[in-house]
Amino acid sequence: MFTSVKEESILSLGEVELITSIKDWLREISPPCPQGIGDDCAIIDTSQINQQLLTTDSISYGCHFDHTVSAKQAGAKLINRNLSDIAAMGGHPGSALLNLLCGSNLRIDWLRDFIEGIRQTCKTYSISLIGGDISTLPAGQFTAALSLTGHLEGPPLLRRGALAGDAIYVTGTLGGSIYQKHYSFEPHLAQGQWLAQSKFCSAMMDISDGLAKDLKALIPDGCAAHINLESLPVSPDAHRRASESGQTAQAHAFCDGEDYELLFTVKRTVDLSQFIRRWSEQFPTLPVSKIGELRKTDTKAHYINSKTKEPLPWLKAFEHFTE
Amino acid sequence: MFTSVKEESILSLGEVELITSIKDWLREISPPCPQGIGDDCAIIDTSQINQQLLTTDSISYGCHFDHTVSAKQAGAKLINRNLSDIAAMGGHPGSALLNLLCGSNLRIDWLRDFIEGIRQTCKTYSISLIGGDISTLPAGQFTAALSLTGHLEGPPLLRRGALAGDAIYVTGTLGGSIYQKHYSFEPHLAQGQWLAQSKFCSAMMDISDGLAKDLKALIPDGCAAHINLESLPVSPDAHRRASESGQTAQAHAFCDGEDYELLFTVKRTVDLSQFIRRWSEQFPTLPVSKIGELRKTDTKAHYINSKTKEPLPWLKAFEHFTE
Repeated sequence: MFTSVKEESILSLGEVELITSIKDWLREISPPCPQGIGDDCAIIDTSQINQQLLTTDSISYGCHFDHTVSAKQAGAKLINRNLSDIAAMGGHPGSALLNLLCGSNLRIDWLRDFIEGIRQTCKTYSISLIGGDISTLPAGQFTAALSLTGHLEGPPLLRRGALAGDAIYVTGTLGGSIYQKHYSFEPHLAQGQWLAQSKFCSAMMDISDGLAKDLKALIPDGCAAHINLESLPVSPDAHRRASESGQTAQAHAFCDGEDYELLFTVKRTVDLSQFIRRWSEQFPTLPVSKIGELRKTDTKAHYINSKTKEPLPWLKAFEHFTE
Repeated sequence: MFTSVKEESILSLGEVELITSIKDWLREISPPCPQGIGDDCAIIDTSQINQQLLTTDSISYGCHFDHTVSAKQAGAKLINRNLSDIAAMGGHPGSALLNLLCGSNLRIDWLRDFIEGIRQTCKTYSISLIGGDISTLPAGQFTAALSLTGHLEGPPLLRRGALAGDAIYVTGTLGGSIYQKHYSFEPHLAQGQWLAQSKFCSAMMDISDGLAKDLKALIPDGCAAHINLESLPVSPDAHRRASESGQTAQAHAFCDGEDYELLFTVKRTVDLSQFIRRWSEQFPTLPVSKIGELRKTDTKAHYINSKTKEPLPWLKAFEHFTE
């Protein structure tokens, strides 16, 4: 079942190819996106009026959080990660199922605080926790998976839908989430709902693994994203991280994961100054930045520096199952 | 987060008390059963006509399967465990989300076969796999959690609902599942649906942890289950197990887990011979056995030997988080 030969292990595929392989292996039981694998949530077509969403995300000790994060913060993060996926479809959250998998040497008071983090966050967003499962892992291990339902009150905003000429926007600031933001972010539910209903946008997703990896999903065939590096909303923590890593703050803003900001495209037919005005009226405290636009290309590069016209050197963001 | 002091760890609570504690900690975000924790599935009340079900279950290497079980069998088991929960409500299955958590040294061909087991089983029951998540665990580890939707075409058959005087029935045979049945069982969907619609029954669940643990959930306050040991449908594998363990085959039938049979109560007002005739017409190849009945009691014992009137000595079935 396990192997020390890299070529035989899933390490040789990496996360992206692994997901593609699984979709291939599943064949006819894997419906096309967005009814199936490939967007932030799956859409269950209960009716045309009130489409249901379903998403799942997990957190593991040692991977998504460590001893520097409190139990309450870890619990809140599990809910907020899933909420960010609902937000990225323009949806409203509903009910949750919790899968707890842990070693039996887990402290009772730690678990109580973890559940308290879940409770507080669910209460904030009117989510009910309606069921789950508990199972044993070896001592010292903890993983929690959450499945969350949601619903749409209008058409969803999918990852696919952008066209050449559309502008690329991102909310908030990016990079250096490792210091704090990865457990203290707030899912942008109201913003996602507004963007889905406003008709300004052609595509949307959340940034969970890093712009460098996630933005690819929004780029239509035959296009590249022309990025204006000076417009990248670099966070103070990206600067702090740069001072420690030796890389640039822009590189951290472009490649660091766990920002949980919304990444979306605004249709080329939209008056961008009108869009920005409307956004600022709605969400005066959350900045939004135009970081570039989609253009037709003959090259294979996904990301082009809009000033130098050279491909951007940063292609790698966080990916499971890589060395 | 982890502790070597037993009293501080979840080991000191055990699974049943742990679930009760979590429900208490969740407070107002935990709706009452069956809209919340406590039955085989949660019911999401989308409408009175077509109630939706949601359930989740996981399998871990080293806990729910080991190297003697093929990857395909493990994949099939993950689906079938969840289907058994849908069956236990009288429901019809819908769409699934898959959470994979594994060490990056997992063999690609093993995972492909695991997914093939999922695919074949989903195809059999017309389930779509619509989304999921993949995440890293330490080398040598594998856990998969599945969430499954379903729907009811009539009123559900819940765990609560039985009354004193109702007869206790179980499908199939019990015990010794460790040899084979735990990975080769078929979920009793058609039977669950028929029982829910036939109006013969007052309560139902599936046996996943063993009769000794699970039957408690069907016993109303102030009652005990009077068990006729001679009527227990003891499987050939329970006899085999008894010859190795030194315990009786009846003890294995009563206490072994992972039978995934349906356990239900038939209303005291029902003509039992008519019920059996109707069952046999519907399901001629699946036996059903009356193993006892519910009676009012003043004692604390859950299970009484109906012949000797003494409490049954077997109280322990499989429980996570016990020594």
